[in-house]
Amino acid sequence: MQGTPQPTSPPDDAYTRTDRTVPTRSADRATYDRETVHAILDEGYVCHLGFVRDGAPVVLPTLYGRVGERLYLHGSTGSRPLRMAGRPDPGLPVCVTVTHVDGLVLARSAFHHSINYRSVVVHGTAHQVTDPEEKRSALDALVDHVVPGRSADSRPANAKELAATAVLRLDLGEVSAKLRTGGVNDEPEDLSLPHWAGVVPVARHYGAPLPDAALAPETGLPDYLAAL
Amino acid sequence: MQGTPQPTSPPDDAYTRTDRTVPTRSADRATYDRETVHAILDEGYVCHLGFVRDGAPVVLPTLYGRVGERLYLHGSTGSRPLRMAGRPDPGLPVCVTVTHVDGLVLARSAFHHSINYRSVVVHGTAHQVTDPEEKRSALDALVDHVVPGRSADSRPANAKELAATAVLRLDLGEVSAKLRTGGVNDEPEDLSLPHWAGVVPVARHYGAPLPDAALAPETGLPDYLAAL
Repeated sequence: MQGTPQPTSPPDDAYTRTDRTVPTRSADRATYDRETVHAILDEGYVCHLGFVRDGAPVVLPTLYGRVGERLYLHGSTGSRPLRMAGRPDPGLPVCVTVTHVDGLVLARSAFHHSINYRSVVVHGTAHQVTDPEEKRSALDALVDHVVPGRSADSRPANAKELAATAVLRLDLGEVSAKLRTGGVNDEPEDLSLPHWAGVVPVARHYGAPLPDAALAPETGLPDYLAAL
Repeated sequence: MQGTPQPTSPPDDAYTRTDRTVPTRSADRATYDRETVHAILDEGYVCHLGFVRDGAPVVLPTLYGRVGERLYLHGSTGSRPLRMAGRPDPGLPVCVTVTHVDGLVLARSAFHHSINYRSVVVHGTAHQVTDPEEKRSALDALVDHVVPGRSADSRPANAKELAATAVLRLDLGEVSAKLRTGGVNDEPEDLSLPHWAGVVPVARHYGAPLPDAALAPETGLPDYLAAL
């Protein structure tokens, strides 16, 4: 197995590398730095949840939140994986991926076109959250991931709503991030070509909040929304 | 199997429903309308590609383009799936998912928080593109998906670059879209709560293009970029 990365004791600030978290290509873009991984995860709220059903892959978008070294995944689109992870709960092998696109890299050559991005891939076994208190704090984390500060400014879920909500828990154990930053990497002989080259920044943009028609007029826009 | 949706001959304007494209929850949000599916796919350029490796799911972000009823996926992050789909090519079972987030739905109750989104899920078997001409047009489609019109304004890939590029082909056969639109769905008894409620629009935003440092000063910004 010479040349194959082996699991080693991680420093506190990095995840342990494993065979499946070390990419076979562009390994220089991979990082296991815990702070980088957390920052990428915390910037998003929609992940792509992969699992295996009848031997075939399934990928569904769903909401997530992070609490320490744990992800919580919303079950609204996941009744199938959630049933599979049900009682008795052997756990469901999953892969959860979060991707942010930061820029379009337009090179002079078609071949060197690329995307600036940051992504995190988590491999592991997901389990249903059954403890009501853990489920409640997981839902708070989900809501606060979408809009920080929002969970404290909404009616908490009641027992019936909690029971109707499915949440999966996934520990951050086998984790990697991958990033591409910077400008174009054209071949030296292409630099004089007449094609425009450079990077077009891409970002998430929030529009002006649209109040619900039934909102009482005196209900002002909360600071945490104005800050978006 | 009463009650289970059976594949039927589709009208020309819709994909055939199958057991795995009919969701078990929120089925009212699903659509098989071909035009809707194409529009969602054409608005994006990063998909999440799911496949099974050693029995476990893997989800990787990668670039894609659509040509008629076919997706082409870039192999830069996919050397593992591409090797698995190699010669002799039995094909690789995949699930490709594309998701756009359109709004944050902030209800008065934590339970009714949601996201406005549009997603497409494609199930199928991916094959490596080996024909040089098909590969070349696939790469053009990938580049034009990112920036419409760009492939004609860049140096085409040469034979060496084509050989170094891996592309997967996936036919649009088993396909569904899922959408959530509109406002908050609070319980009637929650409408008088003092929490702000409404929708925060979310969109992709392009910043001002940043020219490459080596760009000749006379190279103006092309119209297709100004139109982004």
